[in-house]
Amino acid sequence: MTKTKKTTIKDIANVLNISPAAVSKALHDDSRISDKTKAAVKTVAKKLNYQPNHLASALRRGKSNLVGLIVPRTNSNFFSSVVQNIEEVLNKKGYNIIITQSNESFTKECSNIDTLLFTQVDGIIASMANETIDLDYFEKIKSKGIPLILFDRGENDLNVDYVGINDYDSSHMIIEHLVDQGCKRIAHIGGYRHTRIFNNRVKGYIDAINKHNLPLEDELLIESSLTIEDGREKMEQLLALENRPDAVYVAADYAALGALQVLEEHQIRVPQDIALVGFGNEPFTALVSPSITTINQHSAEIGKQAALTFLERVKTPGAKQTLNKIIFEAELIVRDSSNKKG
Amino acid sequence: MTKTKKTTIKDIANVLNISPAAVSKALHDDSRISDKTKAAVKTVAKKLNYQPNHLASALRRGKSNLVGLIVPRTNSNFFSSVVQNIEEVLNKKGYNIIITQSNESFTKECSNIDTLLFTQVDGIIASMANETIDLDYFEKIKSKGIPLILFDRGENDLNVDYVGINDYDSSHMIIEHLVDQGCKRIAHIGGYRHTRIFNNRVKGYIDAINKHNLPLEDELLIESSLTIEDGREKMEQLLALENRPDAVYVAADYAALGALQVLEEHQIRVPQDIALVGFGNEPFTALVSPSITTINQHSAEIGKQAALTFLERVKTPGAKQTLNKIIFEAELIVRDSSNKKG
Repeated sequence: MTKTKKTTIKDIANVLNISPAAVSKALHDDSRISDKTKAAVKTVAKKLNYQPNHLASALRRGKSNLVGLIVPRTNSNFFSSVVQNIEEVLNKKGYNIIITQSNESFTKECSNIDTLLFTQVDGIIASMANETIDLDYFEKIKSKGIPLILFDRGENDLNVDYVGINDYDSSHMIIEHLVDQGCKRIAHIGGYRHTRIFNNRVKGYIDAINKHNLPLEDELLIESSLTIEDGREKMEQLLALENRPDAVYVAADYAALGALQVLEEHQIRVPQDIALVGFGNEPFTALVSPSITTINQHSAEIGKQAALTFLERVKTPGAKQTLNKIIFEAELIVRDSSNKKG
Repeated sequence: MTKTKKTTIKDIANVLNISPAAVSKALHDDSRISDKTKAAVKTVAKKLNYQPNHLASALRRGKSNLVGLIVPRTNSNFFSSVVQNIEEVLNKKGYNIIITQSNESFTKECSNIDTLLFTQVDGIIASMANETIDLDYFEKIKSKGIPLILFDRGENDLNVDYVGINDYDSSHMIIEHLVDQGCKRIAHIGGYRHTRIFNNRVKGYIDAINKHNLPLEDELLIESSLTIEDGREKMEQLLALENRPDAVYVAADYAALGALQVLEEHQIRVPQDIALVGFGNEPFTALVSPSITTINQHSAEIGKQAALTFLERVKTPGAKQTLNKIIFEAELIVRDSSNKKG
């Protein structure tokens, strides 16, 4: 490596005979700059070996231009798709994204919050861990005046912006569909009820079962951590019942996959003997045999809206604004695992 | 929320009659503290509503206790599993992890490096974007004296620690297997050759084809971005050949999945007419029908070794040490897509 004079934004501006501000905007893909100018700026920047100094520009503006994300895990299509869409929107506005994962652990989530506050993020977009009951740590973000936007797994009590889908209605759509397929004894492997989205799915299940005068029994409503392994375990539990269900609605696709494996091992025909429905539209649900009926959670739209909500908050910091509660209607994707008529 | 006196590590130490240092170690899951003490410390910490001040402790120690990761994307089982294992090792040592993704873009990777340097990480563990040719940005990390460990997609020229698998030998294993199944005309849909791992897979393919005196033709060796879509496109290209291959080795599972979809659409029997092999052991490879033969990349071991290498580097900063080049032997998992004899 040879040391040469460092290229600045001004050098690029001089070559192209435009303002340094325009160069800066072009480098950040600002929508106010034409594609042609952007291309020219990037070509010159590359030629002159320009290296942006993120730290310096952040200090100048008194902000880090970082947005921190907290997700339960990244190896879920839903969460990675939300993250992807948040990045696409915010990168274009000059923000960089750092991701932390809680692995469903409350302690880890607290560390993540500390880490993000330490890195001086301009905002935090989060979906809560399964374990989280105590909200003090999230209050800490609010008390520092840093915008906090929750998606999917949120909490009404926190009184912050929220983007998600209508979980209660989703359960109704699923039960309607199963009733329509002739199912009469429908079990629900649900998530932890202290998590609002899972509680809403359980409430939707209960109300829909009652609406259709179907048996609502303790042994048919099971709480689960919703991992593949726990899906397997809970399905075994249902198969051990004297009076087995003829349909199982599982509140997450990975657990539904575990349940499907167990059904295959017991040589139970799906959907003829037991129909199966998952939740989340993970890509594997379309690929396994039988393919799994599931709920599309609109991850792309959730990601985009979460990002736009953050941008709205930073545009007018401190201003009293109406809270955003953006709820998308979910979509049922009927596949082989529950389609008795096809 | 009512404001109460902030609990300190000293308060916890007083209750348990142990040293504040022991409390701190226990809270960071330090292996020098017994599980019993750790449990006691955590119970008291929770009772007293202790909230660690990450920033303060970092400033005290002159380090952030943050490790930054750069991965091409998080929604890949390989990368998310590596990340998971890095986190498990480093969390236990009191480090927090922040993740950034490049989405295979060089520009984004440069921003990621700037972001991580801005957040004052104690080290960076990275796997390079497909686009990356210019290594100046990675040199920037080195020049700041921050440990840099590369995994999977690395570059010899950078002269830093590296953890990966033996890509060259993996190709040999695959070709041996396909020859053993009676295949005589084997195509390779490979990655960009400027990326070392993909180049090594191509080199392994060429040498193995020559070793077995099989046809090595330009039309059978195709460069690809290895997305699902590009896997589809390149498979269509192979099917359009006058002299079709009887086996296709694809350098990544997602592209292999795209290729499989195209074969099904053309009603070509797999493996009888064309055998198919992927790379990476993504979970869906075991779930689709036919299941896809693939290479297990030992993501867990790679993650652990990358983390341990980082810990070794920070233990004796600045010390001249032999570079670590940890190369795992890959494992071929034979499934239905190439098993003509089963």
